Amino acid sequence: MKYCSECAAPVTTRIPAGDHRPRYVCPACGTIHYQNPKVVAGCIPEWGDEILLCKRAIEPRIGFWTLPAGFMENEETADEAASRETLEETGAQTADLELFSLYSIPHISQVYLIYRARLVERNFGPTPESEQVRLFAQQDIPWDRIAFPVVRLTLEKYFEHRAAGRFQLTVGTIDRRS
Amino acid sequence: MKYCSECAAPVTTRIPAGDHRPRYVCPACGTIHYQNPKVVAGCIPEWGDEILLCKRAIEPRIGFWTLPAGFMENEETADEAASRETLEETGAQTADLELFSLYSIPHISQVYLIYRARLVERNFGPTPESEQVRLFAQQDIPWDRIAFPVVRLTLEKYFEHRAAGRFQLTVGTIDRRS
Repeated sequence: MKYCSECAAPVTTRIPAGDHRPRYVCPACGTIHYQNPKVVAGCIPEWGDEILLCKRAIEPRIGFWTLPAGFMENEETADEAASRETLEETGAQTADLELFSLYSIPHISQVYLIYRARLVERNFGPTPESEQVRLFAQQDIPWDRIAFPVVRLTLEKYFEHRAAGRFQLTVGTIDRRS
Repeated sequence: MKYCSECAAPVTTRIPAGDHRPRYVCPACGTIHYQNPKVVAGCIPEWGDEILLCKRAIEPRIGFWTLPAGFMENEETADEAASRETLEETGAQTADLELFSLYSIPHISQVYLIYRARLVERNFGPTPESEQVRLFAQQDIPWDRIAFPVVRLTLEKYFEHRAAGRFQLTVGTIDRRS
């Protein structure tokens, strides 16, 4: 951030009175420009014993497999965001969402919320963000071609819990802060 | 947002190519300025059968009681944010955080994450944000002076689950979208 989005003056960085952290502050109009983590919401869409994965058609990690997920938008709920992203990236309608994992990823200031979800129909396909969308049985998961550590961890926990016969919320951190 | 924070040109509002939503876009440098929900993280600090509440010293809802909670910061985890906010607002150290509730509040674009947490010592007091900080037994909770609906709901669920002898994650929405 270089300029104030309210008055266009160049911003400075300082710790405001009563605060503990450096912020972008406008010396002209006094606006403090806070920056905060983003929520990424997504689904593990289930069809019988299979789950739906997407092969990424866009960077980062083009050609690698992932769960449908993306940035939560203003004025929506976390589960609406997870369903919307699944629809946008796979063409699939989901229902009966249950929160399965919450991962904090502090070095990129993100919080991932992944829901288990029922595929309403066996109806999905490629989209602008996914060059291929398909169902995988556990033994066919492309473990060596998973796009992101948070997706790998979530899938590992998912199959662990499924084997144990009971899904419980998984809370964790992927910590690569220096 | 009126001006581009990268180049100070006046921004316009339009739906970028491949997107579904109007965004603030800079016609001069092309930057798309996304705006996303914020995470509020906090604790239900427990000391035996009592829990710690704060009487707000600042607006909004000055003089009303709340759980210690506040905006998650970049480069921290959700549970670090919950502990930090508890320390800032009550002076109390917490440990053994367990996620208890996740509420989406879409009309204000917030996601609340509230953790049960053990008070490390019986050591707390007023702070710049809390004019009074005290432990409450269930029968003494000031139900008619609770600051926010999300805090009331979380506390209601907390005592419900405690009575049932088992805490489970509570996921919900406080929906006042028009």
